[in-house]
Amino acid sequence: MSKLKFTEVPGAVVAPQGFLASGVFCDIKRLGTGKGSNKGQKRDLALIVSEVPATVAGMFTTNQICAAPVKVCAERVKAGTAQAIVVNSGNANACTGKQGMKDALAMTALVAKQLHIPDAQILVGSTGRIGVNLPMANVREGILGAAQLLGNDVPHADEAVEAIMTSDTRSKKIAIEFKLGGRTVRIGGMCKGAGMIQPGMSATGARPAALPQGLHATMLCFITTDAAVEARTLHACLQEAVANSFNRITVDGDMSTNDTVLVLANGLAGNARLGRKSAELKAFQVALNHVTLELAKMIVRDGEGVHRVVTVRVAGAKTIQDADAAARAVANSALVKTSWHGGDPNWGRIIDALGYSPAKVVENKVDIGYSAPGSSKVLWSLKRGQPTKATFKELCAAAAPKEFDLHIRLNLGKASALMYAADLTEAYVDYNKGDVTDPTTLGG
Amino acid sequence: MSKLKFTEVPGAVVAPQGFLASGVFCDIKRLGTGKGSNKGQKRDLALIVSEVPATVAGMFTTNQICAAPVKVCAERVKAGTAQAIVVNSGNANACTGKQGMKDALAMTALVAKQLHIPDAQILVGSTGRIGVNLPMANVREGILGAAQLLGNDVPHADEAVEAIMTSDTRSKKIAIEFKLGGRTVRIGGMCKGAGMIQPGMSATGARPAALPQGLHATMLCFITTDAAVEARTLHACLQEAVANSFNRITVDGDMSTNDTVLVLANGLAGNARLGRKSAELKAFQVALNHVTLELAKMIVRDGEGVHRVVTVRVAGAKTIQDADAAARAVANSALVKTSWHGGDPNWGRIIDALGYSPAKVVENKVDIGYSAPGSSKVLWSLKRGQPTKATFKELCAAAAPKEFDLHIRLNLGKASALMYAADLTEAYVDYNKGDVTDPTTLGG
Repeated sequence: MSKLKFTEVPGAVVAPQGFLASGVFCDIKRLGTGKGSNKGQKRDLALIVSEVPATVAGMFTTNQICAAPVKVCAERVKAGTAQAIVVNSGNANACTGKQGMKDALAMTALVAKQLHIPDAQILVGSTGRIGVNLPMANVREGILGAAQLLGNDVPHADEAVEAIMTSDTRSKKIAIEFKLGGRTVRIGGMCKGAGMIQPGMSATGARPAALPQGLHATMLCFITTDAAVEARTLHACLQEAVANSFNRITVDGDMSTNDTVLVLANGLAGNARLGRKSAELKAFQVALNHVTLELAKMIVRDGEGVHRVVTVRVAGAKTIQDADAAARAVANSALVKTSWHGGDPNWGRIIDALGYSPAKVVENKVDIGYSAPGSSKVLWSLKRGQPTKATFKELCAAAAPKEFDLHIRLNLGKASALMYAADLTEAYVDYNKGDVTDPTTLGG
Repeated sequence: MSKLKFTEVPGAVVAPQGFLASGVFCDIKRLGTGKGSNKGQKRDLALIVSEVPATVAGMFTTNQICAAPVKVCAERVKAGTAQAIVVNSGNANACTGKQGMKDALAMTALVAKQLHIPDAQILVGSTGRIGVNLPMANVREGILGAAQLLGNDVPHADEAVEAIMTSDTRSKKIAIEFKLGGRTVRIGGMCKGAGMIQPGMSATGARPAALPQGLHATMLCFITTDAAVEARTLHACLQEAVANSFNRITVDGDMSTNDTVLVLANGLAGNARLGRKSAELKAFQVALNHVTLELAKMIVRDGEGVHRVVTVRVAGAKTIQDADAAARAVANSALVKTSWHGGDPNWGRIIDALGYSPAKVVENKVDIGYSAPGSSKVLWSLKRGQPTKATFKELCAAAAPKEFDLHIRLNLGKASALMYAADLTEAYVDYNKGDVTDPTTLGG
């Protein structure tokens, strides 16, 4: 990390000046999915609004099957400004054909009417069951309520976070404050996601050559800031932030149809507008990186059935593509993930996964070791393809914590990559095997 | 299938004329792995011998981390002839450095000495724990015993099959008899494999461009035949057979360091030696295909924790690579596999996996449906991206059997591919999470 000093503050997306939020219950979840059924009437529609027009940037799933709200956002963010985001949970509005697109647009039109903001300034997100049309009567009721209940205090922010959760067991939110050119600036964020998590997002939804194959959650993330940032610069900052956070996590290796990250920057902090050449840009980037990385890690920690979180750190690869491919192969191997669940320091499965990855790997060059998160004090289990003298007991102790780092050195080059990964547990299987007594789970 | 008539016969690898087998207990398993520990003294060393020199062909894992016995075989099969195969279970002799290679060669030398066959005519296989040197005292004892106990009856064949099993719960064997140019010919086979199963084998162990990325059992398969087949022709036949069987199965998407298929053809049936232009070649190919496919399906059915077996049939892809990639993405998706476990006809997860696969997919062209194995009577759940009128109850009934076919039509071209796949169950996770109270599981 850098020397930028920032402090955490409460309020998530309403922590920055000029942002309002609300989260309401309109019974979409019960209609949309059996599993996340709305016992206790969990909120399912959120609204985030800036009091003034903001610059906007967005990144979206590169899945070829992509939900209507993603298509709407990808198109609208091109204008570089937006003022509100409406989000429902319980129904992904994915694979819903022309009606799905109509419904996504109707959501934005309703918000526009309620808030007296131009329709094109409204963005939309959905998460939940795939393949079922939105219950628009409920959605309308929700939007009317959410528009009336907007507020800028912590409870309002919390209600908005709750309203985007599906299989999430914990709310995921953060806000930080830091100095930028003498001004106090805040960045706030909230996100959701627990399963169908290995985002591979790009700015257009089109798959760039640079994105590794096999990228694969619905994860939704909404970031607000009162910094003044020029739209193109905001876009570049978001790309860097996502590349090092959401695009580096995996729960189950499945990439969703709905992954979306949006950032609104309304400029009310009064800093000199950040452009590509601004001296303060780096500080803003560091702060944004922190927000996205913390949110991304919350997703992995709260992944469906997840017991252990492992940061897979590959170094010494021939190319950056190799480093990425090696890290993903290990992070998504069923056998490696089940060994993590068992606390088993099984290097055989790790080197096996490295060997079948597309990355160049040479057996007698591979080092494998363990450390505490972020620590450089590594206990090596394998060096140059040969077991070290570390005892099984020592290695088990290293693989026992709820979070640890797995270090892999290929010793073939200088490229490195990391993945924030999770174990594979009976609880994941149990949660996802579905409930065939409940037809509302179909497609979701 | 073709019109070739064949009948199943007993005896597996000793069913063809001139083959002998044995399987003995030499306590490698207890020393090699805790999980497969040798309670009840399960056999762990097998020997298969032809009374006369045979032509040979082999295919091997394309994992860059590849076990010593694989390297020995890949080199020796080039000569085109072999006479015996020695195999141990309980220890993979993988990631075992120079000592591993010495041990693999020592195994062949011991067999050569016992059987008075030239060393170069002996092939070797290993399966089990990775990263531990073979207990050679035990192996020696095993080879001496196995060489003395060779026999050509059913019990001997069964003992050999038992001796190569690891996490397998059932023995996997077959033998068929058919007519070839007026002669009675037999092909016999045995195999093992249950986890670390998604073979991607080539003749040399080198990764051919044609093999899809992300290929990933130890599966071992040994085939014997009394047909007379020219070595190059045998090799071509094996390539076709493996491409349509072992290279089309997946249990967990992990490709092993030890995958090996070997076929010995000793010519004792007395048919005119088959060459590339022989009129009878097609009949032999059909028979070999049948043997490898039946053995491959046995592996999926007996996969670790497997409750359901699903044949994923992709048609209408733009290219064969697309068809293969689409089938593998669905077959290896954690969310799709858990839905199969639950008997949940969840097309949303299937279309999601298709969408993130490298294959070209267009949402409003995709059809998804279910049938009984091999049946063309398909119940469609999705047509052109839209849910059909099939009821949830009907779809659940289609996804309820222990085995069913999943039909996917991309409607973009003419290429097709299939994968024999398995569900992901709590039992798989439980089996593979390891036992950290037992240091002998390390690396395996």
